[in-house]
Amino acid sequence: MFQSESIQPCNLERLARAIRAEIIGDPRAVVRRAVPFDQAGEGDVTFAAENSFLAEISNCKATAIIVPSPLDAAGRNLLVARNPKLAFARAVQFLHATPYKPSGVSPDLIAGAGTKLGCDLSIHPRVTIGRDCRIGNRVTLHPGIVIGDRCHVGDDTVIHPNVSIYDDCEIGSRVIIHSGTVIGADGFGFVADEEGRQVKLLQRGRVIIEDDCEIGANCAIDRGMGDTVLRRGVKLDNLIQVGHNCGIGEDTVIAALAGFSGGTRIGRRCVIAGQVGTSQHITIGDGAVLLARAAVFKSIPPGVRVGGVIPAQEYSAWRRSQAIYSKLPDVVDRLKKIEKIIREQKLDTQGE
Amino acid sequence: MFQSESIQPCNLERLARAIRAEIIGDPRAVVRRAVPFDQAGEGDVTFAAENSFLAEISNCKATAIIVPSPLDAAGRNLLVARNPKLAFARAVQFLHATPYKPSGVSPDLIAGAGTKLGCDLSIHPRVTIGRDCRIGNRVTLHPGIVIGDRCHVGDDTVIHPNVSIYDDCEIGSRVIIHSGTVIGADGFGFVADEEGRQVKLLQRGRVIIEDDCEIGANCAIDRGMGDTVLRRGVKLDNLIQVGHNCGIGEDTVIAALAGFSGGTRIGRRCVIAGQVGTSQHITIGDGAVLLARAAVFKSIPPGVRVGGVIPAQEYSAWRRSQAIYSKLPDVVDRLKKIEKIIREQKLDTQGE
Amino acid sequence: MFQSESIQPCNLERLARAIRAEIIGDPRAVVRRAVPFDQAGEGDVTFAAENSFLAEISNCKATAIIVPSPLDAAGRNLLVARNPKLAFARAVQFLHATPYKPSGVSPDLIAGAGTKLGCDLSIHPRVTIGRDCRIGNRVTLHPGIVIGDRCHVGDDTVIHPNVSIYDDCEIGSRVIIHSGTVIGADGFGFVADEEGRQVKLLQRGRVIIEDDCEIGANCAIDRGMGDTVLRRGVKLDNLIQVGHNCGIGEDTVIAALAGFSGGTRIGRRCVIAGQVGTSQHITIGDGAVLLARAAVFKSIPPGVRVGGVIPAQEYSAWRRSQAIYSKLPDVVDRLKKIEKIIREQKLDTQGE
Repeated sequence: MFQSESIQPCNLERLARAIRAEIIGDPRAVVRRAVPFDQAGEGDVTFAAENSFLAEISNCKATAIIVPSPLDAAGRNLLVARNPKLAFARAVQFLHATPYKPSGVSPDLIAGAGTKLGCDLSIHPRVTIGRDCRIGNRVTLHPGIVIGDRCHVGDDTVIHPNVSIYDDCEIGSRVIIHSGTVIGADGFGFVADEEGRQVKLLQRGRVIIEDDCEIGANCAIDRGMGDTVLRRGVKLDNLIQVGHNCGIGEDTVIAALAGFSGGTRIGRRCVIAGQVGTSQHITIGDGAVLLARAAVFKSIPPGVRVGGVIPAQEYSAWRRSQAIYSKLPDVVDRLKKIEKIIREQKLDTQGE
Repeated sequence: MFQSESIQPCNLERLARAIRAEIIGDPRAVVRRAVPFDQAGEGDVTFAAENSFLAEISNCKATAIIVPSPLDAAGRNLLVARNPKLAFARAVQFLHATPYKPSGVSPDLIAGAGTKLGCDLSIHPRVTIGRDCRIGNRVTLHPGIVIGDRCHVGDDTVIHPNVSIYDDCEIGSRVIIHSGTVIGADGFGFVADEEGRQVKLLQRGRVIIEDDCEIGANCAIDRGMGDTVLRRGVKLDNLIQVGHNCGIGEDTVIAALAGFSGGTRIGRRCVIAGQVGTSQHITIGDGAVLLARAAVFKSIPPGVRVGGVIPAQEYSAWRRSQAIYSKLPDVVDRLKKIEKIIREQKLDTQGE
Repeated sequence: MFQSESIQPCNLERLARAIRAEIIGDPRAVVRRAVPFDQAGEGDVTFAAENSFLAEISNCKATAIIVPSPLDAAGRNLLVARNPKLAFARAVQFLHATPYKPSGVSPDLIAGAGTKLGCDLSIHPRVTIGRDCRIGNRVTLHPGIVIGDRCHVGDDTVIHPNVSIYDDCEIGSRVIIHSGTVIGADGFGFVADEEGRQVKLLQRGRVIIEDDCEIGANCAIDRGMGDTVLRRGVKLDNLIQVGHNCGIGEDTVIAALAGFSGGTRIGRRCVIAGQVGTSQHITIGDGAVLLARAAVFKSIPPGVRVGGVIPAQEYSAWRRSQAIYSKLPDVVDRLKKIEKIIREQKLDTQGE
């Protein structure tokens, strides 16, 4: 851990208020760091949500432990919160989040005509911005960022090194975009002509990333004929493909290496696991959960949970299962024949 | 849509010629935009290929609609083309494609000794080119591009921000490469030595991207011992891995997150869906179609269509199916026993 | 092949010593290039490991052929090595590896206060380094690289264009990092609050890449609450996701598009194929082999080989198999009924 002390050590009374927890123990005890359970010691606050950790509380050396309900932990300072992980996330922010300090605008900034910059900026060296852009207040732009023409970037947004944003994209406020991500490249649309050559469908829409989104490293979010939109609070992990004209609803979270074909409509508060893929133009309802690597060919109603992958097996078992997989139609044919024999022989089937 | 008007409004007579369609209606009617069916209004041309759209034609407010065959659409201007989507792609290009205008060579260009530049270039700021390169005419290089030594870039090619091209790569004419893509990194070749340490196989071949290819964002196309080649007109979506020594045939299109192991040979005019993967050294015949996420372990003959993924299921159904999947060998054993009993009991099987 | 001649032509006596092989033939014969079997001619050394190549040895025009055991090859110069591919990898390095020559530090280097540079560097133009970093000796930094604050880069490391390294990362000696890779972005950790909004878990750990690692293009290696660590000699292909707090053991090799959820612990000398995925917090034992696209939900013991994907099938066969897949639970129910009938009818089951 590179940052061993908090920005502001604080007593449990203040911390409990900040994270919305009840104290059992000494409100004057002081903590400096918020760290995971197995790393916690004197001066730390940690959390225990699962039974395996709760069982170990008496061995934990942390100064305070966030727990889901009051429990007997002789001498330990407890912070009781309905969702200990949420309270812990708040504790980390409270103790460790660095307050924003503008570093100013690097003199080597290249910005096209008509581009307007806000106040209190941190524009690092080697940033390139096109024409007629609008950059809000307190925006942080790291080196190597390239922003096209007519883009907007909202207040308090942070864009990490080497991000590429094409023309006519809108990035909201308090957005975080990690390195290497590409926003607004052309959607993948081609039509084969009379000689089999691919004719490009020009994609003229925008990409809109609303407030409070966070986008991981090396993602690709394409523009389409219409707009591609990530609604407020969407969180993307790394290496995610968002095809042209996709729409992703508020507060939906998506894990790494997922890919969405053109026109996928994803609802609010969905949870989408890693390596998931979707067919074109389907709809995923609000609150749906797509488990690891689900291959989604049909629309999913709201709130439904879907899975799809076959878990890895030990090699020889896997070989046997997959050999049989391709013979399944034959297996079922054989079963049907037997059922017919049994029916025709009038074997007694009442006992079933 | 950020660009609401066309570059050049035009009447249907001119448009029909450009997109190779027949007019039914008023050849003097004027259109300004080509837009998708559900967004089309007065002054727009759109297309209807599927029955669901064709059924809605009388409600469509577009000034002209491209359709696959003459049909009764009282008062609508129709443009009849065998492939409406192709005609529409041409209409978008005809109305909206911006004619190329060179912006010149940025004075901050860094180019190594022996590098030769063509005419009418658009080399934006912060481009870095190595030694002994040859850059053609009317090439657009966006900020943050790094090109190694001894590379060629053909005429009219557009390379988007933050693309990295290693030494000795050849990029053809009219190629488009989207942001973040990496061309010519070392193929993944290692051999474990006597102590289990990995010894690198130096990869000394080139990457060759022929004319008219388009490569999406954040792809990786590796060099090998021999050359890795994308033939004329290949189109790659985003986040695609092309291993060392792969060859991809003319006009083949490949969707996002597909990955090709070293030495994969892919034919002409193949269609390869998202998240597909291939084993090393296999061959995909001309015109083959690999459906979403197919895992291709064996060579595929020309023209064949293959699938492979199990579609996502509702959670509890999926859990049941996958639990049984691993027991398939046992299921088949049980079936075999029953078949044997039936044979040996001489149950009448004539009725089948 | 762009580099047709070796740096230093050499006779077989010297070469055999360098690659630890025995000569059968003329020790004074001279070779200039090491190339694959099917490209080899006069003046080349190549290797034949598989029977298909061994059978063709008498037709091979190479000046010398590396083989696994002495064999009858009238007039051919043979180099006998237990592992011909390993000996060949060494031959390529011996004949073709360019000795390091420092190009110096570009005058446009931007480096923050407190950053210390080693000797004999090759820092190309347009590199940006933060504060308090330590760059070792003989390091090569290509254009477009952005390195954050408090990072270390060890001796003889090569970092390719447009790599982004966040604050507080440690890169060892003799490491190679390919273009577009992002090291140290925030791990994907969020907790939904009372209103369903996602609260970010600040990730304060480091990313540590030990000596002799090689990381492909466009990978993403996240930081976590604790450290994310790649041990000595780990080799990653392109487009790989390494989640927060992962640990990858020495000499493990991982193919493209694999993704590891937060907290995955991977042992030493594992071999992990393309598109593999793992669940959070599982452990992969030393020497385990994960075959193509295995979906690993449970920990894997050392040395075990696991598979998981269903190979692609011809379209209509695939459709039949996958239609039946979802009906497997029903198939098994039918089988159970038949087994019950047979039991109850007291059909003779002794013959089995």
